[in-house]
Amino acid sequence: MPVRLHAPTVIARKRDGESIEPEVLRAFLDGYLSGEVAEEQMSAFLMAGVLRGLDEDEAVVLTDAYVASGAVVDLSALTGPTVDKHSTGGVGDTCTLVVAPILAACGAQVAKLSGRGLGHTGGTLDKLESIPGFRVDLDPDELAAQVNRIGLAVAAATRDLVPLDKRLYALRDVTGTVPSPALIAASVMSKKIAGGADTIVLDVKAGNGAFMQTAAEAGDLARLCVRIGRARGRATAALVTDMSQPLAANIGNALEVRHAVDVLSGRVTDGRFRTLCLELAATALHGAGCSDDPMQAAITALESGSAAERFTAMVTAQHGDGDVVERPAAVLPEAPVIRDWRPGAGRIGLVDCRGLGEVAGGLGAGRSRKDDVIDPAVGLQVLGSIGDTVTDGDVVAMVHARTDDDAQWALEQLSRMIPVGEHDVPVPTLVHERIGGDT
Amino acid sequence: MPVRLHAPTVIARKRDGESIEPEVLRAFLDGYLSGEVAEEQMSAFLMAGVLRGLDEDEAVVLTDAYVASGAVVDLSALTGPTVDKHSTGGVGDTCTLVVAPILAACGAQVAKLSGRGLGHTGGTLDKLESIPGFRVDLDPDELAAQVNRIGLAVAAATRDLVPLDKRLYALRDVTGTVPSPALIAASVMSKKIAGGADTIVLDVKAGNGAFMQTAAEAGDLARLCVRIGRARGRATAALVTDMSQPLAANIGNALEVRHAVDVLSGRVTDGRFRTLCLELAATALHGAGCSDDPMQAAITALESGSAAERFTAMVTAQHGDGDVVERPAAVLPEAPVIRDWRPGAGRIGLVDCRGLGEVAGGLGAGRSRKDDVIDPAVGLQVLGSIGDTVTDGDVVAMVHARTDDDAQWALEQLSRMIPVGEHDVPVPTLVHERIGGDT
Repeated sequence: MPVRLHAPTVIARKRDGESIEPEVLRAFLDGYLSGEVAEEQMSAFLMAGVLRGLDEDEAVVLTDAYVASGAVVDLSALTGPTVDKHSTGGVGDTCTLVVAPILAACGAQVAKLSGRGLGHTGGTLDKLESIPGFRVDLDPDELAAQVNRIGLAVAAATRDLVPLDKRLYALRDVTGTVPSPALIAASVMSKKIAGGADTIVLDVKAGNGAFMQTAAEAGDLARLCVRIGRARGRATAALVTDMSQPLAANIGNALEVRHAVDVLSGRVTDGRFRTLCLELAATALHGAGCSDDPMQAAITALESGSAAERFTAMVTAQHGDGDVVERPAAVLPEAPVIRDWRPGAGRIGLVDCRGLGEVAGGLGAGRSRKDDVIDPAVGLQVLGSIGDTVTDGDVVAMVHARTDDDAQWALEQLSRMIPVGEHDVPVPTLVHERIGGDT
Repeated sequence: MPVRLHAPTVIARKRDGESIEPEVLRAFLDGYLSGEVAEEQMSAFLMAGVLRGLDEDEAVVLTDAYVASGAVVDLSALTGPTVDKHSTGGVGDTCTLVVAPILAACGAQVAKLSGRGLGHTGGTLDKLESIPGFRVDLDPDELAAQVNRIGLAVAAATRDLVPLDKRLYALRDVTGTVPSPALIAASVMSKKIAGGADTIVLDVKAGNGAFMQTAAEAGDLARLCVRIGRARGRATAALVTDMSQPLAANIGNALEVRHAVDVLSGRVTDGRFRTLCLELAATALHGAGCSDDPMQAAITALESGSAAERFTAMVTAQHGDGDVVERPAAVLPEAPVIRDWRPGAGRIGLVDCRGLGEVAGGLGAGRSRKDDVIDPAVGLQVLGSIGDTVTDGDVVAMVHARTDDDAQWALEQLSRMIPVGEHDVPVPTLVHERIGGDT
């Protein structure tokens, strides 16, 4: 029996803290798509949802509606187990560039559709485009053929995925209704479900450089995402990880590619970024059933060079310069002004992770508006971590800028962002929680 | 210094439970008027206000903005103390038709601008228009001249008062954001302040026939209204009164006029309606400084016939048939079908007051849409009150309907609305609380 929709009643029920039955919430969302429910009604509903809460069943209905509103990627042409990976976003976080090649090297298939979005640095597409010649405009047949051949591809979505999520996100952004775990989870999971992969691994960030400030909040969000994914038949697991300091030393598009290829090539053999890439890859391999000892498989893929070989194959297949892994300095663009930051002796205290992202953005590494042009070469290198001892003269950070003025501005910011002195703070845990995986 | 408005930040601050500073809230409301703040932003703000609360300072800013958005009535041409009265609305509530003549008889001046609105029965204008010939379209000069001559007038607003309140009410109505004491108080008080009177008396209803269900909620609303009125220099007082059963026996437009003229003429000398009219009149006279013993003055005005004389003068001045006070049956329209309801012996329990209003509305006495046409003759008479003992054969209610079918429908509803049986319920208190007056 069709549900008779009376939008003000649905809004008032959510205002009063009620759960909205699936068929009623579906009718409300359909009404929004058809124009029967107005923008001002949806925003009032969303605010009521933010303040009164939306439960897991409601989050699943939202997710389904987002998915149903647009195209769904058909991965049936792929032969192997399909895996997708998502990070809720942080500073110096370019794990996809290492995790996807590891997975491909271990027999999984990664057909990743990425967006560009707004942020302190670009998205995965922007980062890859800092490799000269790299093309992201694969059509669905090209994408499938490449993944069947080499195990991975990263491309821009050619069809309109989850348009309802995009429309609601634009509304939430201007109406103070972003911070709702259910709305965030539905947004994350709808993109992954529409992306078509059977196995999904999530990296949910916690800390002052992330949306979720505490590990507890991030854990709640991660659990909700995992439950939604499983409710829709996807093997889903999540890690809750630290974003109280940049994940990798490098922040900026070409700089992050450089760090990723340094890890792939074996020039960098430790650090938080490499550790987390292995954790994420192992979690995904476990979910996809690709290995009995997924962590060992991931380490082997990295150390043997087979992951690097897959990355090179992808870059080459997508018309980029395959020399980037072995000779990144020759291939990647470099900023004209590079300056060292030497703060003097002391210990590194709690850094302003979000602030460091904003400095990179201020140098031109990201977008604050849709039509901003990204400068691939600029950014920061933060060589020290929380708790490190600094000796007088040590270089703790480097600024890569377009102009002397920009560099000077960024250097001034750094002393506020990275306190060096008499600090005695605990070193942050990298992985706070593992949800839904057994690794 | 002008405030730089960033609407999403204002919304987020209210979402997080902050009070918004007067200058920021003013800028937000100005932005809404200018189109810079979108409907969906305002509705999200309103929902946050409903759920997180709006404080007294915010309510005053809202009230000021409503008043400033439109015309303000200029009562400077009036010679006496000016009084206005407002009821938050209930069933069988037509006190204005008795209170205003009492006030005029005691030397106050009542220049009342009324609306029509939606509801189970019409507004004061609709009720008065059930008197043949009655005109409500007085221009400001006619209004002032009539009030200076006879002490009272009830007219439709000729200029646009509080347009921001109207616009926001329309938005609140469709977005589930009506139930906020601050928003309701600002709406009530802005109309009264724009109405220009120096003394304001409010009748805030509590019970299942009113918006506020409990006397405690209604008391909070009344206190807030009184504080806003005083903050803007008006002598303001409020009564919190019972709306758990119809105030008067009669519900419907001509029926309510009939009850009012029965009280004015002295044919009815007791009952809740008459008592409350005297209470409201005495409160207003006290506020306006019109009498040392305002209750005695009000009683005298009623019993001496001077209030009835003022009512007749008003009806005649506004082109209505002045015989209505002495010969209402000959003047007022009567419904073609009148049926008695005899429930049998027992005691009257808790009635469904709102339901009784809806039955009157269902017979055609009110509007559910702006362009509905009111039938002045139809309605209900509810002769019994909560706690009354009914003997077999007693008429407890009468239906005044357009058709036999309508009457039959209404009779069937009555047995659900008025339980008669083994009830032992307390008789409701008529006046729960007096706020800001000393009577």
